[in-house]
Amino acid sequence: MPGTAKVNPDLQKERNRATFPVHVMTYVLDGDPEKTKRRRYVENLVLNDPVYKHKPVCFMSRGERYSLGMKKALHAVKKLKELNLTDPADQYYYRSFTMPHENSPIALQDDMFIPILSTQTTDEQKAKWLTLAKSLQIIGTYAQTEMGHGTFVRGLETTATYDPQTEEFIINSPTLTSTKWWPGNLGKTTNHAVVLAQLYTGGKCHGIHAFIVQHRDMETHQPLPGIEVGDIGPKFGYETVDNGFLRYHNVHIPRDNMLMKYSEVTKDGRYIRKANEKLTYGTMVTVRSGIVSNAARQLAEACTIAIRYSAIRRQSEMKPGEPEPQVLDYQTQQHKLFPLLATSYAYWFAGRSMRETYLDIQSQIMAGDFKQLPELHALSAGLKAMSTWAASEGIETCRLSCGGHGYSHASGLPKIYVDATPGCTYEGENTVMMLQTARYLMKACGQAAQGNELPGFVAYLNQKGLDRCMIGDDLSLVSLVSAYQHRARRLIGKAALQMKAHMERGKPQEVAWNLTSVQLVHCAKAHVQCYVLKNFVDSIEQYSHHEDVARVLTQLCQLFAVDGILNNAGDFLQGGFMSYDQLDNMTAKLLDLLAAIRPNAVALVDAFDFSDHLLQSVLGRYDGNVYENMLEWAKSSGVQHLSKQS
Amino acid sequence: MPGTAKVNPDLQKERNRATFPVHVMTYVLDGDPEKTKRRRYVENLVLNDPVYKHKPVCFMSRGERYSLGMKKALHAVKKLKELNLTDPADQYYYRSFTMPHENSPIALQDDMFIPILSTQTTDEQKAKWLTLAKSLQIIGTYAQTEMGHGTFVRGLETTATYDPQTEEFIINSPTLTSTKWWPGNLGKTTNHAVVLAQLYTGGKCHGIHAFIVQHRDMETHQPLPGIEVGDIGPKFGYETVDNGFLRYHNVHIPRDNMLMKYSEVTKDGRYIRKANEKLTYGTMVTVRSGIVSNAARQLAEACTIAIRYSAIRRQSEMKPGEPEPQVLDYQTQQHKLFPLLATSYAYWFAGRSMRETYLDIQSQIMAGDFKQLPELHALSAGLKAMSTWAASEGIETCRLSCGGHGYSHASGLPKIYVDATPGCTYEGENTVMMLQTARYLMKACGQAAQGNELPGFVAYLNQKGLDRCMIGDDLSLVSLVSAYQHRARRLIGKAALQMKAHMERGKPQEVAWNLTSVQLVHCAKAHVQCYVLKNFVDSIEQYSHHEDVARVLTQLCQLFAVDGILNNAGDFLQGGFMSYDQLDNMTAKLLDLLAAIRPNAVALVDAFDFSDHLLQSVLGRYDGNVYENMLEWAKSSGVQHLSKQS
Repeated sequence: MPGTAKVNPDLQKERNRATFPVHVMTYVLDGDPEKTKRRRYVENLVLNDPVYKHKPVCFMSRGERYSLGMKKALHAVKKLKELNLTDPADQYYYRSFTMPHENSPIALQDDMFIPILSTQTTDEQKAKWLTLAKSLQIIGTYAQTEMGHGTFVRGLETTATYDPQTEEFIINSPTLTSTKWWPGNLGKTTNHAVVLAQLYTGGKCHGIHAFIVQHRDMETHQPLPGIEVGDIGPKFGYETVDNGFLRYHNVHIPRDNMLMKYSEVTKDGRYIRKANEKLTYGTMVTVRSGIVSNAARQLAEACTIAIRYSAIRRQSEMKPGEPEPQVLDYQTQQHKLFPLLATSYAYWFAGRSMRETYLDIQSQIMAGDFKQLPELHALSAGLKAMSTWAASEGIETCRLSCGGHGYSHASGLPKIYVDATPGCTYEGENTVMMLQTARYLMKACGQAAQGNELPGFVAYLNQKGLDRCMIGDDLSLVSLVSAYQHRARRLIGKAALQMKAHMERGKPQEVAWNLTSVQLVHCAKAHVQCYVLKNFVDSIEQYSHHEDVARVLTQLCQLFAVDGILNNAGDFLQGGFMSYDQLDNMTAKLLDLLAAIRPNAVALVDAFDFSDHLLQSVLGRYDGNVYENMLEWAKSSGVQHLSKQS
Repeated sequence: MPGTAKVNPDLQKERNRATFPVHVMTYVLDGDPEKTKRRRYVENLVLNDPVYKHKPVCFMSRGERYSLGMKKALHAVKKLKELNLTDPADQYYYRSFTMPHENSPIALQDDMFIPILSTQTTDEQKAKWLTLAKSLQIIGTYAQTEMGHGTFVRGLETTATYDPQTEEFIINSPTLTSTKWWPGNLGKTTNHAVVLAQLYTGGKCHGIHAFIVQHRDMETHQPLPGIEVGDIGPKFGYETVDNGFLRYHNVHIPRDNMLMKYSEVTKDGRYIRKANEKLTYGTMVTVRSGIVSNAARQLAEACTIAIRYSAIRRQSEMKPGEPEPQVLDYQTQQHKLFPLLATSYAYWFAGRSMRETYLDIQSQIMAGDFKQLPELHALSAGLKAMSTWAASEGIETCRLSCGGHGYSHASGLPKIYVDATPGCTYEGENTVMMLQTARYLMKACGQAAQGNELPGFVAYLNQKGLDRCMIGDDLSLVSLVSAYQHRARRLIGKAALQMKAHMERGKPQEVAWNLTSVQLVHCAKAHVQCYVLKNFVDSIEQYSHHEDVARVLTQLCQLFAVDGILNNAGDFLQGGFMSYDQLDNMTAKLLDLLAAIRPNAVALVDAFDFSDHLLQSVLGRYDGNVYENMLEWAKSSGVQHLSKQS
């Protein structure tokens, strides 16, 4: 690596002033020392493999990035076998280290194609397809989204019509808008797809079902007859992903290409539903907890870059004649970055807890007891939305906080952003997700009103709570949680009353819902923020024996809470819950917390333990030698620079 | 253009339901019918010129985009002469239509190099350099920013040391961080630069001055001896701009390469200051009003795309069994987009008023009377910041509101975003700008406290105002402005008190300033929002004779105000100014306004009169034929698609 091995003195001073041991915080974030050791072991396997060493991809054309991405992805498949990395966590880390902020051109194979072939097939079908997929003999994607339908799956227009004469389904794209649009790896790479289509048999439509359909010839890789396929064109990011379009014209597939674990069509064309599909809720929760953790990680990476850079960047004069201060000493800079740092810790813990809760209740689910699932499912929808929104907005705040250099790919931040922001849209558009959470909250509200006890986290709706805010000078975590619960209770109750008022005026339920939807989203946000805060507090409890660590986590948690109060001050003041003086005190406390966290800012991002390789950022280098490396980076294109020294 | 000439029926219905004449609103936005006619005339000159017709640039490599950009820019130079387009507005429109959301590879020539050679040179120097520049015989840039210094110009490290023996300045980049970094067109294109450097003569440093320095050979285009120059590498956007780096090693220039209008170094090395540099304040205000108008335009373009698309996109079921509703019928979608639409109108008027105010006081300035300049300068700083922030955040909100297709370059939104977001950083980093406004407000506050009368817009600080909010059901514009003034007065006063409290506790002024800076930025934001709202109200007054137009502008203005109140509810509730009931009413009013604006949403964006060519968006096409054109767009790469029909 170019530049000196010595750490930038400003950055070293920051590390020297930390009030807690960074490695202990790393264990907290990873879960335990064993996990840290394992993650670093896996990362070193990647760092030491020359196949993964290349100039920054932002200097390459899209074609070059795709080819390099494919080379690395296939190498990873081979290495994972060679190195016998079978644990899902190992595999996740290995893959993500090979392609920082990029998606593999065969990502859909592991993320969707293989899992679906595992879980939605009969044993016979599994035997036929799964080995082929796992050995990459067939390369597949998941073709759900269409040009005209993303969010509303029931509106998909691709058809699969059963012909009992030939015992075949005929797949068609009957309209322009039925064109499959967006499936990853479809544009160039894949030869098969799990296709979602409206199932017709005996003249009746039975809704959306999944079918395996080949679209490219296994020898020539040309589209098969009746197939129109290609790339959907350039995007904001995702350069390595060949998102594709696909149209079907009378494509015939055997009957048993329909994935038949949960339902089936018999040879003579009878439709039979076989099993309870609520089991897929579990997959959704798992996927969403992964999205939450991922979002937290991306925001944490952005904070790492921005905070380190703000520690080495000196600019302007605070006191005339004195050296230019570190940008991180400006209160306005702390105000931009430290709440984001707190937020990344908050969602880091939230994603983890979500996954742990799901694993806890999994035995119940397997036994057919779904009692806790609706609440967890609703919470997972809201957490998915809030975490991805936080990451998307937060990463751009981090980038802008880096001034001019933030706009250069040398910061690494544009790449993190375009990789993170789709999280707001895929796997459930965020506003739709919030409304799902709200729907559950309205039901729960109704239950609580009838005196029924509520399960899990949402039980706070049953409690009355104090009608005066108890947050004092000590910013006790209990009082902060209590305030957030009051706020959520109030907003949820108000939304429910508003719904009721609309319906009492004769509006149909769906119209009332739409006219209340802004308030419904808002109360759902309050609920999720409540969970995130309470979970942050509970997580800190686990580390109360580590005083230094607990102290700084508490400060972060308080900052998260206070910043949220100030951003939603109206909600807390309403009805006189919080007094005007208390609100003024919140501002004072926010500023105090910024100053309190200042000495530990760099240590807190060091604790995430992101390698320079992962960050892909000159500004965020661990050694802080930014300026020494900027020119080198600029020359990475390998193009002969018109430069000459005298 | 591909696709049918027929307008999408949903979009046509939207246009049919407008309650005001769109063309009249276009005249309002342009200023008058003559201006509209002229703008369209100029745009047609571009639309009819085949040189400007090409596939979307997002399908091209960076090299191709640069070359195409250069070809178009040089063609534009030629055409502007041929067509005799000398009016600055004509030239601005012509150039922007040739390169939608892109910067010309010789932009700095017209934007900085020539203006500086016009205004900072003696008559002799002008005669020597200006013709060469205007005829593109020399191509120049403006080299101010360095690797280590952007915002803090006084910290620039490039040196220009005078040698009376040779009557030359010797230019040097003494440190790594003194490397010029970011100047546009430097990386590849230019041969000269106006360079800002610390002037040394007789062993004394006289601060930052400007020098013309050639860096490339006029024949070979190779770097001259002592010059190290190249491109700084890829960026988030700005692909056509070769932002460059440049290091000087003992580069000698003649004495009279120093721009000597305001100061000079004599042959024997004496430094003489010649004129008042406050005159440059005026340039700053003009540049900033351009930035404000530009930001408003970019946000307006994004709103146009998102609102048109939301009118043709149908998704999900509001009422089971009924057709999927237009996404624009969802209250949550209106809540995302309509405040942004209102904001674009608000800043559109603000940028225009800023420029008009400056022109009004220009005669005063020329006569040496700078009385109104400090207030206008401070306001321009804050407006620059608020408008670019609004555009940057707003464009991304528009993009995310378009769901999956928003991420595709087919939406046009990623390109608008990466073109708009640097506005937050260049020409004065936004937070620094807000603090400049705040600095003025603290002075004004002190003046008001002493009973002195305040000039211009800031006079409201002298007034006491009511201590109860008078906003009622009618949302009168007067009551809204009054509420915003109260809020700004309160926050400015509080910040001043906080400064005082810190200093009374013994903190030096600069420490007190830093510790109050979050509050200072906040009160400056309140002041600027006050101006924008009042200016919006005043602008509507001018059109009161056009009832239909005035009515819908009033609704937009009310929405702008109410949305701002809800986003800053704490400020309005504080001290009991606004009651809890009034705040509740604000939410109800917001939702009513969304519904009231709904029928006019498409007409309001049509009024901006952005051509399809300018928007570069499939989703935002005037005819709304989105789906019909998406596939065509995807194939624009010209690469043979692996597609075949049966």
